[in-house]
Amino acid sequence: MKELCERIKKDGKVRPGNILKVDSFLNHQIDPMLSSAMADEVYRLFGNEGVTKVLTIEASGIALAAFVGYKFGCPIVFAKKSKTSNISDEFYTAPVHSYTHGTDHDIIVSKEYLHPEDKVLIVDDFLAMGAALEGLKAIVEQAGAKVVGAAVAVEKAFQPGGAKLRAEGMRVEALARVASMSDDSLEFCEE
Amino acid sequence: MKELCERIKKDGKVRPGNILKVDSFLNHQIDPMLSSAMADEVYRLFGNEGVTKVLTIEASGIALAAFVGYKFGCPIVFAKKSKTSNISDEFYTAPVHSYTHGTDHDIIVSKEYLHPEDKVLIVDDFLAMGAALEGLKAIVEQAGAKVVGAAVAVEKAFQPGGAKLRAEGMRVEALARVASMSDDSLEFCEE
Repeated sequence: MKELCERIKKDGKVRPGNILKVDSFLNHQIDPMLSSAMADEVYRLFGNEGVTKVLTIEASGIALAAFVGYKFGCPIVFAKKSKTSNISDEFYTAPVHSYTHGTDHDIIVSKEYLHPEDKVLIVDDFLAMGAALEGLKAIVEQAGAKVVGAAVAVEKAFQPGGAKLRAEGMRVEALARVASMSDDSLEFCEE
Repeated sequence: MKELCERIKKDGKVRPGNILKVDSFLNHQIDPMLSSAMADEVYRLFGNEGVTKVLTIEASGIALAAFVGYKFGCPIVFAKKSKTSNISDEFYTAPVHSYTHGTDHDIIVSKEYLHPEDKVLIVDDFLAMGAALEGLKAIVEQAGAKVVGAAVAVEKAFQPGGAKLRAEGMRVEALARVASMSDDSLEFCEE
């Protein structure tokens, strides 16, 4: 998506450790006009898939997911990060490893909000190692529902998450795919 | 706001400890059509105030804030809950006590995203004791910016947060004000 790639080139900042800082418009501070345009693009990609629910993870996926849910006219559910091990009949749970923080935590979704008949579109801001999307996929599968695919704002295509998920059969669409980055350059994949 | 009050009556659940569970449409699962209608109402209330930024707190305020920011055509900033005491020049910070969880934590906002010339509308899903709004207000004041007011989805008007903030001079608008609740009844304040 040209508008997003241009914005990343203009306002994104590369930090040591393959960190791409886009928190002036995508997380922490959010440009709602850009998010809404991104949601239009997600609808163009997945609008024919009969999506009944948009699933994301707190906190930085929520704003984009909100606009996506609005375009699709369906509810949004956000998985919560659980501090304690939630051994409960009320929730679907999956472990997620954070490569950024070097920590493990569980994510939880109430069983009330995912059902076997749901066709679920997973939405998130970033895809790098794929840990969050794998956790969300596991939760959808526990519910017996179908993953229609995943839409992410930015994929770091030089990290293995996207390739792994696609090899597992998931349709993964990224609105911007970063091929490589260094202190003084940022290259996107050819579309 | 009639539509929100009716939805709370229909789908809200009262739980022991004055808990009003609205996570089938307002947090955890979100109805984006209702959220967008709520944002229209917030715009009707604050549209003439020259708002330059919408400020909320992760995670359950973000979806409503996203739609509000879209209506106002201005950026959204969400305060993050910090696990560690963030003694850093990069952030504004304020302590927030959680009455629900009995814990204290700091919230942080990058200094890049709030400026003295900003006119800030604070948005959140719930107002009860007012701790989150007090923390957000403190952060806006640290930035030397102006708080235009606060818009919340649901105020528990039988708890003291709203009265305290209004006594301090803040304009606080709640789209639904719960006067009282018990297992078998839920009463809203007369408008």
